[in-house]
Amino acid sequence: MEKKILIIGGVAGGASAAARIRRLDEFARIVIFEKGPHVSFSNCSLPYRLSDTVKKTEDLILMSPEKFLKQYNIEARVNSEVIKIKRNEKKILVKDHASGREYEESYDKLILSPGAHPILPKSIEGVDKEHVFTARNVVDIDRLYTYLKKNNIEDVAVVGGGYIGLEIADNLHRAGKKVSIIEATEQVMAPFDNDMAQILHKEIYDKGVNLILNDAVVKIDNDHLVLKSGRKVNAKAVVMAVGVAPDIALAKDAGLEIGTTGAIKVDHNYLTSDKDIYAIGDAIEVYSRLEHKYFRCALAGPAQRQARAAADHIYGIPHRNNGHICTSVVKLFDLNAALTGLNEKRAKAAGISYDFVYIIPFDKVSLMPDCNIMHFKLIYEYPTGRILGAQAIGKGNVDKRIDIIATLILMNGTLEDLKELELSYAPPFSTPKDVVNHAALVGLNLLNGRYKQVPVTKVRELVENNAFIVDVREKEEYNKGHLINAINIPLSELRSRVNEIPKDRPVYLHCRSGQRSYYAVMALQGMGYTNVYNISGSFLGICCYEYYQDQVTGRKKIVTEYNFN
Amino acid sequence: MEKKILIIGGVAGGASAAARIRRLDEFARIVIFEKGPHVSFSNCSLPYRLSDTVKKTEDLILMSPEKFLKQYNIEARVNSEVIKIKRNEKKILVKDHASGREYEESYDKLILSPGAHPILPKSIEGVDKEHVFTARNVVDIDRLYTYLKKNNIEDVAVVGGGYIGLEIADNLHRAGKKVSIIEATEQVMAPFDNDMAQILHKEIYDKGVNLILNDAVVKIDNDHLVLKSGRKVNAKAVVMAVGVAPDIALAKDAGLEIGTTGAIKVDHNYLTSDKDIYAIGDAIEVYSRLEHKYFRCALAGPAQRQARAAADHIYGIPHRNNGHICTSVVKLFDLNAALTGLNEKRAKAAGISYDFVYIIPFDKVSLMPDCNIMHFKLIYEYPTGRILGAQAIGKGNVDKRIDIIATLILMNGTLEDLKELELSYAPPFSTPKDVVNHAALVGLNLLNGRYKQVPVTKVRELVENNAFIVDVREKEEYNKGHLINAINIPLSELRSRVNEIPKDRPVYLHCRSGQRSYYAVMALQGMGYTNVYNISGSFLGICCYEYYQDQVTGRKKIVTEYNFN
Repeated sequence: MEKKILIIGGVAGGASAAARIRRLDEFARIVIFEKGPHVSFSNCSLPYRLSDTVKKTEDLILMSPEKFLKQYNIEARVNSEVIKIKRNEKKILVKDHASGREYEESYDKLILSPGAHPILPKSIEGVDKEHVFTARNVVDIDRLYTYLKKNNIEDVAVVGGGYIGLEIADNLHRAGKKVSIIEATEQVMAPFDNDMAQILHKEIYDKGVNLILNDAVVKIDNDHLVLKSGRKVNAKAVVMAVGVAPDIALAKDAGLEIGTTGAIKVDHNYLTSDKDIYAIGDAIEVYSRLEHKYFRCALAGPAQRQARAAADHIYGIPHRNNGHICTSVVKLFDLNAALTGLNEKRAKAAGISYDFVYIIPFDKVSLMPDCNIMHFKLIYEYPTGRILGAQAIGKGNVDKRIDIIATLILMNGTLEDLKELELSYAPPFSTPKDVVNHAALVGLNLLNGRYKQVPVTKVRELVENNAFIVDVREKEEYNKGHLINAINIPLSELRSRVNEIPKDRPVYLHCRSGQRSYYAVMALQGMGYTNVYNISGSFLGICCYEYYQDQVTGRKKIVTEYNFN
Repeated sequence: MEKKILIIGGVAGGASAAARIRRLDEFARIVIFEKGPHVSFSNCSLPYRLSDTVKKTEDLILMSPEKFLKQYNIEARVNSEVIKIKRNEKKILVKDHASGREYEESYDKLILSPGAHPILPKSIEGVDKEHVFTARNVVDIDRLYTYLKKNNIEDVAVVGGGYIGLEIADNLHRAGKKVSIIEATEQVMAPFDNDMAQILHKEIYDKGVNLILNDAVVKIDNDHLVLKSGRKVNAKAVVMAVGVAPDIALAKDAGLEIGTTGAIKVDHNYLTSDKDIYAIGDAIEVYSRLEHKYFRCALAGPAQRQARAAADHIYGIPHRNNGHICTSVVKLFDLNAALTGLNEKRAKAAGISYDFVYIIPFDKVSLMPDCNIMHFKLIYEYPTGRILGAQAIGKGNVDKRIDIIATLILMNGTLEDLKELELSYAPPFSTPKDVVNHAALVGLNLLNGRYKQVPVTKVRELVENNAFIVDVREKEEYNKGHLINAINIPLSELRSRVNEIPKDRPVYLHCRSGQRSYYAVMALQGMGYTNVYNISGSFLGICCYEYYQDQVTGRKKIVTEYNFN
């Protein structure tokens, strides 16, 4: 007899599961239930509507119920909210919002793909006002787009500096709006380490966006926000993007097991605690390949993979469950920022012994016109050298470098493997020793004890404590901006002026990006110095790390002039 | 006592080895001998001088002897040709071209990095004329650049359609020259399979460059070439780029072992048959990780890796030798073309059992303004599913996809691994199921026997034999161009019109890119059809494969109109 499979929620996971089932079974009866009016839309493209990068709202809609039916013989019921799962009867109760009618539908297998909803903290006064928006679906984004246009609004505040918040802020900025971002923690983009986030802060600040960190919204008024600090922020429209919560109400009500993270618990095959009910997408918790524990990973790629695995399992096709590492990328004004695996924070929290490399090489041959620097941070397990994660920020192809690292992580690769990768090279694309190879070489030098480094985050302390810092750049470079108490001994003069460098105290070296100071460190060690450190990230890294913090706090600068080139 | 290390040849490998040695040994005496006037230059950037992408010839020079000495305490002697290696005495004989003087220099260790020289077939009459150029070094490229400028030359012929030939042709075209490319074989870019090369042929042809295949130059006259076919080609300057030969004269003369490929034989540590002489770079043969035999791989990345390994070995530092897979990328007009590992030709020649996938998906979300199709061919071992190689061509980030595959190859990855890769996704960068994931899914479907495919290269034969071909695109698409005897049954009408499709003969399906026809194949199989094939590459692939061949041969077209979108 033909199988009857119901799917709750059409976006990303749900539609993928339906399509895969149809490919496996021409005769299954497949019905998708979607609460909203659109069964399948490009979720991740929503912010791009605000800048007219996506020209029409309708373009966001990928599939109509008619097309689902004609092309795949899949029934998609929109405006159809599933309000109860009757597990004992293997039925769901559906409310048709068009007619108001409620009805039951039986299933052989049920797939939950309800997603996650934006969090709207009730503690904020005025959060339910008409000019407060979220950006979960096409209706939301169209409402926001239309509201801004109709009321000719200039000042917009985005509350929350995560992926969605920043993509919305970016697109609003492109649309010519005056944008404020209010983030409650000390940094935007929590998945990045704080040192890398400073590069994003600089970019946001440089673009003229009003970035406010460490402050929270307590009240939303008609033309301004009031923050916890008492500060007021002009805003005639407010987008709430403080985070999302998995939609578990239906699952919970049906007595399905909920995991420790507050999302739906699933097994290897994305089965819930009911053997006829699967769950996929943003509403579930998944296993972290690197941390060996469950966590939430609300990304489109994994959702599609889960959808396929669940569909396959219905038909007895086994799949491999590698756990998740979470790889992502975001375009933020003129920068691209990508990451994969663990950052320092997560490695620390998981109690994993790690070390890291931070380099700022060119992303292609420097003779090429669109050559740019790339900030690249690589986290690896200490002492095994196993790759744990990476973060990359720059104007160029950060996604390429991160995808290479993501591939290595799945394959349990180490620094030795990364060093040996034979990657494509031609001057318009990369350098013979690519960014990622370079990072591996530095990591191996550290692992093998060839030299020692200190991170840019420690440089202020060094400066304040009058550490012995040598800037090995050429004099012209030094004169354009340098650490306030660094002495300048260019690499080209190092051997003749080595007597100026003491042997009885720690010596810290830097240049522009760390390459020349590495040579200098090795030379000094060769000459018998035992207490020399390379400042990882060097002057470029120091400037990027200090710049935004200096701007907002007005604290004493540790460099005479910033230099970002 | 301090080591004395001599290095013959400074470009790429030589300079890298010298720098690494200095980092390992502050007191070694290091001398680089370079025949030409420049000890270190950006080899791969040479063609970009012709289009003024590289603004000044001097910009190509990376390091001067003065800088080598000051920064690294490395002596670099230019215009210094090593004319003999006296192995018994551990000395080399050097000719100083500036003074004409010959002298000896002793060594503890010697590193050969002589490179490879452009082949100038003596069989071509006039190959030694003044207006015939090669592009090995800065002097060559400057001579060509100056000659074209001074003589106001318009017509230039490039002989040879490999990497260097095409990069030169591209940059001459950008400089406004009328360019002809003469290639003796049936395709440009030998490392690509013939089906993929057709996409490059189309691009060259569309850009108005005069591409001549299957023909050879027999005579170079002052304003034209004469080809074997009798055809004449206007050219007031000629660039010879038919290939390079390893510079082995010195090694051979010294009695060092030469490998079966005609390049210098080295061991795991890049030692030649003399325990004090290393060889690296384009002059050596290397081990192919996938074919398990020695071959030549003249690429910059591997040369740098070999340099480091040789330097390390002098100091007792072991390294891993994974063999080579050769990953490369080239910019060709508006296309980027990259590849890694084995192509079909090489897999076949090596007797490796393989199958392949050819897909043409979008490289990012189709709503994004600079979304483009990407041609992607994945070669895997049959029946193991081990990844052997890939070729990617498109306007977008082909290098990213190829680098991911290169990483998997080093890690001995399979289709199952590729399917599971968690790659970065946001609409401006990729799709939730990236090109490479997509290729793996198709490959697994084939491996698992879920459906069968035929390649675009077989379609002409199918059409000529009146095979039953179903075009499942919508009617409007079909009407804009279709296979001359395909019948049109849109996927959306497939189930209602299935009676039009016979069960007693093979049925071949295609759509635009292969996605909808895959659904159709699965549906038909579900309805009991056992002899259905998806045409891999579909209509896009067919058009790209046939287009250029149709243009030059004037043979009968198998499509009513080409369509490349």
